[in-house]
Amino acid sequence: MTDVSLRLDAARNAAGAADIDALLVTPGADLRYLTGFAAMPLERLTCLVLPTDGEAVLVLPRLELQMAVEAGVEDHGIRLVGWDETDDPYAAATAAIGGARRVALDDHMWADRVFAFGAAMPDADQVLAGEVLRELRMRKTEGEIAALRDAGAAIDRVHDRMGEWLRPGRTEREVGRDIADAILAEGHETVDFVIVGSGPNGASPHAEVSDRRIGPGEPVVVDIGGTMPSGYCSDSTRTYVAGGTVPEDFAAYYEVLLSAQKAQCEYARPGVTAESVDAVGRDIIAAAGYGEAFLHRTGHGIGLETHEEPYIVSGNGLVLEPGMAFSIEPGIYLEGRHGARIEDIVVTTDAGVERLNRTSRDLVVLG
Amino acid sequence: MTDVSLRLDAARNAAGAADIDALLVTPGADLRYLTGFAAMPLERLTCLVLPTDGEAVLVLPRLELQMAVEAGVEDHGIRLVGWDETDDPYAAATAAIGGARRVALDDHMWADRVFAFGAAMPDADQVLAGEVLRELRMRKTEGEIAALRDAGAAIDRVHDRMGEWLRPGRTEREVGRDIADAILAEGHETVDFVIVGSGPNGASPHAEVSDRRIGPGEPVVVDIGGTMPSGYCSDSTRTYVAGGTVPEDFAAYYEVLLSAQKAQCEYARPGVTAESVDAVGRDIIAAAGYGEAFLHRTGHGIGLETHEEPYIVSGNGLVLEPGMAFSIEPGIYLEGRHGARIEDIVVTTDAGVERLNRTSRDLVVLG
Repeated sequence: MTDVSLRLDAARNAAGAADIDALLVTPGADLRYLTGFAAMPLERLTCLVLPTDGEAVLVLPRLELQMAVEAGVEDHGIRLVGWDETDDPYAAATAAIGGARRVALDDHMWADRVFAFGAAMPDADQVLAGEVLRELRMRKTEGEIAALRDAGAAIDRVHDRMGEWLRPGRTEREVGRDIADAILAEGHETVDFVIVGSGPNGASPHAEVSDRRIGPGEPVVVDIGGTMPSGYCSDSTRTYVAGGTVPEDFAAYYEVLLSAQKAQCEYARPGVTAESVDAVGRDIIAAAGYGEAFLHRTGHGIGLETHEEPYIVSGNGLVLEPGMAFSIEPGIYLEGRHGARIEDIVVTTDAGVERLNRTSRDLVVLG
Repeated sequence: MTDVSLRLDAARNAAGAADIDALLVTPGADLRYLTGFAAMPLERLTCLVLPTDGEAVLVLPRLELQMAVEAGVEDHGIRLVGWDETDDPYAAATAAIGGARRVALDDHMWADRVFAFGAAMPDADQVLAGEVLRELRMRKTEGEIAALRDAGAAIDRVHDRMGEWLRPGRTEREVGRDIADAILAEGHETVDFVIVGSGPNGASPHAEVSDRRIGPGEPVVVDIGGTMPSGYCSDSTRTYVAGGTVPEDFAAYYEVLLSAQKAQCEYARPGVTAESVDAVGRDIIAAAGYGEAFLHRTGHGIGLETHEEPYIVSGNGLVLEPGMAFSIEPGIYLEGRHGARIEDIVVTTDAGVERLNRTSRDLVVLG
């Protein structure tokens, strides 16, 4: 049994327990999880058809059949079915599950495919496969944790080199380009995002890069990540000061943020809820008077997607278990001035968490 | 009126004519087309709500509100509504269209959102917005054609430099990395795909890169593209021979392919069908005995997506009109040996097509 075939069995069992007759999974992280194949998310239909009782079939354009063979999809007990340019791929996909009464669609399936499967199987109810698949994907195996550890080490090597690029007088975009090159050079297969938020731009948590020149003594939020050849993602944020004198107000709230992030890393463990991890940091930040400046949730799960379950957010009563991987990334943002965020990926162990990002969390003044 | 506000009006009119009360559009090319904003396709809901009669609203995470302001979304008459981490974004999105009986969802909306909108508006029928939006997006304005012309020139500059990188002894992956750097250096904002298919890998039309070393005299299919800062995409394929002696069988079918591609470019014009453009090339290739080796359709439309309507494929009776942009990219593939593809983006003029890729289509022997 391969790892993937074990996942297929687990998915079948969970689907059966949820009274689902078949899963239909199109390109994306769910498909990679269940086939080991990183199919292209293009307009021609590729779809894993996984009956609860029956053979798994991957229906895909004949053009891409050879790629699936080379990716070893058949080794996991999945039969490949290629379709030609003028075939009806929905007919091919549903041929083997004609009697299904209840089919589950991957959460990110495109609407046009949801409708096309509805038309191809007018008597079957459609539900979301996420209810089943997120429970599996949220609990990482040792192999997945090792892959996330590698990803964490790779992005740490990029942060370690930040002094090569981040200097006053350069634009965020120039620095971002160098970081993107390094993300690849340090072992990632793709660059997923590069945020370089200097001065006031650091107060907009999702702003990526701009042509703004970085000034001396300005805080710069650097939030970066990519996907490794394994398919697993990295994501780590550090906030730097690019030479010069550290602003006093910034230094004060950075200390608050650092104590909050550390407290959350120490608190998180199996048995506590996702929302309580959020609250531990939010309370520290609020007590210091910055509650309104912590604009976002504490974190997100990570694996084959940068953002997946579990979300570390108020309202999420999920109880953490060993093997869950997520970010702990509180932030403080002063609009029009500057911001700070500190982000580590952690994975729950039996008694606490292992931090997968290990560069210093102390304020680093470069140059 | 901005270009985008004209598009919003056109979308309202087309939706009204199709008896649709509101369009719901999540991140992707449709959203960029209708707002000018390249929103991030993340798990937090961003959605344009465009009532047929009423104010356009972009609902988005408050974290990203400032980015939408800076992108000028409000200049097009769109109101921004930010939601906070613990709000229900579906309630925010549907607040203004409570009475809608028929809502259209963008074709690539994720299934979980399709279901969430269904739950938020249980009395409204859901249809696909593509029926309306593809008719608009398929007909490019002068401004869009200029943007595609810029994209074509940018990718042509990369092909012009191929001799710097493509040499016997290097791996496909090494060459691909250099090409990716050049795609950015020549003006693209992102690298969308880099196919370097040497020898037998050239016979698998969608294979990207591998660690295979390129041998002397081997044909190499190089199919590359990216997205410009304008949002418009490039896509061009040339087939090279990396030094050495050109294989005789390859030289023979390359000539057939070239004559087919040229014939298709000369034939395509307003008033003919998409499928007839396909047939013109397929007939030439089949007459020379390579019919079975032309594995795929002739082409795809291009604009804010690399692949969009119109598809140049058997069965598509769409009659071409001025201002449609698409690829003409026949190929011949000999499994286990090598392959060739020649691809230009063209745009229909009043009387024919303008080729947006202008590098030589003759066989180029490098080095």
